[in-house]
Amino acid sequence: MPGQRILLSHGEGGKKSRDLIRKIIAKRFENPILSPLFDSGLLGRLDGEIAFTTDGYVVTPAIFPGGDIGRLAVCGTLNDLSVCGARPVAISCALILEEGFPVETLETILDSMKTAAAEGDVVVACGDTKVVEKGSADGIFITTSGVGIACGGWRPAPENVRPGDRIILTGTMGDHQAAVLIARNRLELAAEILSDVAPLSSMLLDVLSAFGGSVRFMRDPTRGGVGVSLNEMAESSRARIVLDESRLPVAEAVRGVCEILGFDPIYLANEGKALLIVDGKSADPIIETLRKARYGRNAAVIGKVTEGPPGVLMKTVIGGLRAVDYPVGDQLPRIC
Amino acid sequence: MPGQRILLSHGEGGKKSRDLIRKIIAKRFENPILSPLFDSGLLGRLDGEIAFTTDGYVVTPAIFPGGDIGRLAVCGTLNDLSVCGARPVAISCALILEEGFPVETLETILDSMKTAAAEGDVVVACGDTKVVEKGSADGIFITTSGVGIACGGWRPAPENVRPGDRIILTGTMGDHQAAVLIARNRLELAAEILSDVAPLSSMLLDVLSAFGGSVRFMRDPTRGGVGVSLNEMAESSRARIVLDESRLPVAEAVRGVCEILGFDPIYLANEGKALLIVDGKSADPIIETLRKARYGRNAAVIGKVTEGPPGVLMKTVIGGLRAVDYPVGDQLPRIC
Repeated sequence: MPGQRILLSHGEGGKKSRDLIRKIIAKRFENPILSPLFDSGLLGRLDGEIAFTTDGYVVTPAIFPGGDIGRLAVCGTLNDLSVCGARPVAISCALILEEGFPVETLETILDSMKTAAAEGDVVVACGDTKVVEKGSADGIFITTSGVGIACGGWRPAPENVRPGDRIILTGTMGDHQAAVLIARNRLELAAEILSDVAPLSSMLLDVLSAFGGSVRFMRDPTRGGVGVSLNEMAESSRARIVLDESRLPVAEAVRGVCEILGFDPIYLANEGKALLIVDGKSADPIIETLRKARYGRNAAVIGKVTEGPPGVLMKTVIGGLRAVDYPVGDQLPRIC
Repeated sequence: MPGQRILLSHGEGGKKSRDLIRKIIAKRFENPILSPLFDSGLLGRLDGEIAFTTDGYVVTPAIFPGGDIGRLAVCGTLNDLSVCGARPVAISCALILEEGFPVETLETILDSMKTAAAEGDVVVACGDTKVVEKGSADGIFITTSGVGIACGGWRPAPENVRPGDRIILTGTMGDHQAAVLIARNRLELAAEILSDVAPLSSMLLDVLSAFGGSVRFMRDPTRGGVGVSLNEMAESSRARIVLDESRLPVAEAVRGVCEILGFDPIYLANEGKALLIVDGKSADPIIETLRKARYGRNAAVIGKVTEGPPGVLMKTVIGGLRAVDYPVGDQLPRIC
């Protein structure tokens, strides 16, 4: 609907709300669970242990190189299920729209959600739409939740992490945040940087099917990047993680942006990557499996678990050993 | 934490985010599913058909007579599960906070969520917190999702609605929206009006356990009130609903506010009421059961299903018959 904008009356529960929901939103996600528009989506019986997750998305700009807030909202929730070993079954879509938001942009974002949901093989089972006055929100915020079924009984087992385990990262660091920063600062670069936003479910569930308990623990390094996620993993598994700086995969263009803007790629958000702590003996075959997947081509062993007090250290390229702590300085808001 | 305010750094994934999440948020909701702070809450096996729902809450003011956005966010999601016949099992809590929001107010709201979740007998299984710059949101927005298990296989059956069925409303109309309007307009009234925000799960599931398929279809008349919900119910069940104006329960004070502000209580939002379409023969015993419950004391039969084309009509107190359509004029934004 070119030129049309979201009005307050689109959120007030009357005819306009109904038209927006039916003709613009639910129409795109049409499926037998959503379509009756009951107050809940009825998923039927789910055989297995259930995982449940939620994330709010407030990224700015809402459309960035390589993706948009819609793709992000779907993939982020699918990935949160996947790193907990759950096959995504259904997601929800709750929109908060600012009065005046272009309907055409909303349609683009919903189309992205639809495409990402299809790629991740989930239905949108329920949703909600609220509209707030101009100035009371910034364009569009999306909160998605997800329900999944644990794959073959696997569950995160930080307590099983032990010295000799390897740390795997499924690809290059920082692409998402670098792409958002470039879009936000309107930087002109020679090399294009695209967000890595992608659904990892099928890749990670393939690894779990093949390697089960050899995979101890997984996280997706979003806000705070690999640096923060590894610190959290070290804490919950009481493990000492030693990274090998020379093995950390970073795209050349992202490294360049980090130098210009003064960021360390280890703290930049990723939206299509996972960190795995795996049994040392299985690391090579797991890397081989990951590299065959569309989103795992640059998977690498980036470090290992050693004896010693919990924490994250890095063996630098010049041979030193430095602590990788939580970031001290300010990162940036609204990256995801 | 008196005097403290939310900072952008509370949303950036570093130490401040971690402290906010652990010490202020997760601490309140502590339970074995949430506490490992994995990327998903692991609910275990759920035996039965699963219902899944979501709603965003943007009500202003965030604290109003009778409740706040926290209680609203929990009860709204519990009620969306309950009217679909599902016993709530777990909810999620996704916060979007504006930079500068008082931490003390956040704590009040989280305490309300905790109390409402305990009353509704659900755990908060997962959550997320984002912070946006001052001016990019209005204080606090909360999106909750819920997972529940269908009670004894009951499911909404609009297709079973038939002439002779009765329409039940579980209490007075419009209390929530009237309370919010009074708070927003700083009206001084002789009689206090409190929002009806409440979890209806136990009351509605008791009715379903006792009366099963005699209950055809339920909705909670939130945005757009009884008027809009009944129109949607008439549409999906292809039923002609005739209301009896003299039987519509409205508190005296709410009627007064409606006269002052020019609203029709039939279109005002409720947050602790349900509409039921039930088999005519079971209407009286269902009313009896409802009236024994804390939130059903004013339950009443307000109309019936008759032969004729789908729609909602009202037999007025002076004996006429008028159409109750979707509201034409503007309602008000941010009531829930």
